[in-house]
Amino acid sequence: MRVDGKPYTTIWAGDDGASIKIIDQTRLPHRFEIITISDVDTAARAIAEMWVRGAPLIGVTAAYGLALAMRADPADANLERASAHLKAMRPTAVNLQWAVDRVRRLLEAAPPPQRFKTAFAEAGVIARDDIALCEAIGMHGLSLIKTLVAGKPPGAPVNILTHCNAGWLATVDWGTATAPVYKAHDAGLAVHVYVDETRPRNQGAALTAFELGQHGVPHTVIADNAGGHLMQHGGIDAVIVGTDRTTASGDVCNKIGTYLKALAAKDNGVPFYVAAPSPSIDFSIADGVREVPIEIRSEAEVTHISGLTADGEVTRVRLTPEGSRALNPAFDVTPARLVTGLITERGVIEANASALAAAFREGIAG
Amino acid sequence: MRVDGKPYTTIWAGDDGASIKIIDQTRLPHRFEIITISDVDTAARAIAEMWVRGAPLIGVTAAYGLALAMRADPADANLERASAHLKAMRPTAVNLQWAVDRVRRLLEAAPPPQRFKTAFAEAGVIARDDIALCEAIGMHGLSLIKTLVAGKPPGAPVNILTHCNAGWLATVDWGTATAPVYKAHDAGLAVHVYVDETRPRNQGAALTAFELGQHGVPHTVIADNAGGHLMQHGGIDAVIVGTDRTTASGDVCNKIGTYLKALAAKDNGVPFYVAAPSPSIDFSIADGVREVPIEIRSEAEVTHISGLTADGEVTRVRLTPEGSRALNPAFDVTPARLVTGLITERGVIEANASALAAAFREGIAG
Repeated sequence: MRVDGKPYTTIWAGDDGASIKIIDQTRLPHRFEIITISDVDTAARAIAEMWVRGAPLIGVTAAYGLALAMRADPADANLERASAHLKAMRPTAVNLQWAVDRVRRLLEAAPPPQRFKTAFAEAGVIARDDIALCEAIGMHGLSLIKTLVAGKPPGAPVNILTHCNAGWLATVDWGTATAPVYKAHDAGLAVHVYVDETRPRNQGAALTAFELGQHGVPHTVIADNAGGHLMQHGGIDAVIVGTDRTTASGDVCNKIGTYLKALAAKDNGVPFYVAAPSPSIDFSIADGVREVPIEIRSEAEVTHISGLTADGEVTRVRLTPEGSRALNPAFDVTPARLVTGLITERGVIEANASALAAAFREGIAG
Repeated sequence: MRVDGKPYTTIWAGDDGASIKIIDQTRLPHRFEIITISDVDTAARAIAEMWVRGAPLIGVTAAYGLALAMRADPADANLERASAHLKAMRPTAVNLQWAVDRVRRLLEAAPPPQRFKTAFAEAGVIARDDIALCEAIGMHGLSLIKTLVAGKPPGAPVNILTHCNAGWLATVDWGTATAPVYKAHDAGLAVHVYVDETRPRNQGAALTAFELGQHGVPHTVIADNAGGHLMQHGGIDAVIVGTDRTTASGDVCNKIGTYLKALAAKDNGVPFYVAAPSPSIDFSIADGVREVPIEIRSEAEVTHISGLTADGEVTRVRLTPEGSRALNPAFDVTPARLVTGLITERGVIEANASALAAAFREGIAG
């Protein structure tokens, strides 16, 4: 997608063929800075310190990181060490484990002198596969948006509400929840996005607003509290969110607060779609509310916030009184009964066990 | 309630009998500062600049303001001028109009030399009436909390979720939604409050957390997004919120985001109570969603936030990218069907037209 009028992906190979470049997402939206990574330790740090975030992007970064490790030392011992090091950076990130294992298995079968080149190429394949997957979600979602456009007065924009950042910044390009929006915008359809701020980490206000704005998509930031009111008054035509984990029965674990928007959508007859790439589906879990463990993150994400001062400095401030504690669950689970449809790379399907099994388990019904 | 171990109300008469004192609420939670007000212009400024906020407190401040105007000049012309000036500070604040009219009518019947004393005394009556009203709500709510305590394991705290600040800082003392909590805490019951941050103005994180903490009530600040998740996992025993306007049919207009918590409460079988003093009831309106006008406030409340830097300075920072717009509806409407009960000064009643009419219209059913 575009930044300052120029097309970008979130990660790309350097011209030297021996480094990668990423956008430092911790600096967004106030600074747009590109970092060159030439060694596995920096790649690991990029993952641990969240210069890159979003499951697909973390996976690709780790794959490239393993390649950079092989450039320095392609021996088996280093392959083992670098794999373990990268995987430990975000232990609960499924894509990270998957991408590292995929590249490592390939390398175990390759002679050491070919390992860097093999891994670097494979990381590129993983990146391109992710772009294709997001584009497929985008095209299926575009069909949904076209249907919404048909129901609006001529020229009136379709209003999409999204939560958190399931945007291109979380993937390699296009994003998941945003892919239908970008496809619609690029096709000349009038689409406007209400962006939930997404406290406490403000991924909506910081990242989704940034990427939509840079690509030229009309959007409006709202407090997380506002979406229900907008739906009550016909202000939202559809909700599209991402998913961190989709259960076999279609429950959706996504950023904290998603469930509240799903309830409001149901109460107001607003379609609630989840952009759910197949890697997000966990067929080992059925009941999301009971079975998905929810990460409790630092209190400081609630009690403090960072922003840009009038002097142009990024500064952290405390919001709560001294002595007040905070609780910070990072995700919640939206039961399948509240989900209108899952926008997958294979089409829009119902959020239930039989539809998911039919689409992705090739007949092995759960 | 207590601050630094000392009992306070939000407004009180100075020892000189010719001034009032207030807490500068714009400085909370990072500074606790008391301002002495000796003239009507400062009283008007306190209302306009939100040194005081909350419908009851605004009303009492205006009543005292009119008294101070009479001290300076008790003539009819000044009574007229000061009344109009005070009422213009927050044109949509019903209590403000009501309190000024109440005192003005009294003064019109009084000879000018007695007007200051009469008004000052009447402002004190309005303040004491509000305290009594809040205490009555507190005692009725205490009965509800006692029932919840009976259903918990011995020693386990009752967990109450509240949104925004319907606390003693919004009234003269006790608050509305917080009154049951303070009564329970003071009665030695184990009560713990989850405080919604309440973006965009953060009244929960800044004011409710402050007042609960100072009074010694265990509490935890959460992002507005977190309440649904907590309810899914049995973490909330009841929700108690305030109301800015309650319709004849029991719909509740309260701070933006209240509706989302009511939906989650309904979905999880958690009782959802609204502390609704009778002055909040507007019998001229039935359908809250269709009929209550919702104030749209400044975008800057969403795009910027204030907090305390590590250096101890209160600083304002920007959260959103340059160029991103925001929308800031200040209230939403929770339909009566989602409200378990209204905690009024006359008891806990159902949120419907017949119950409200029976309790407050003395037989004149709407």
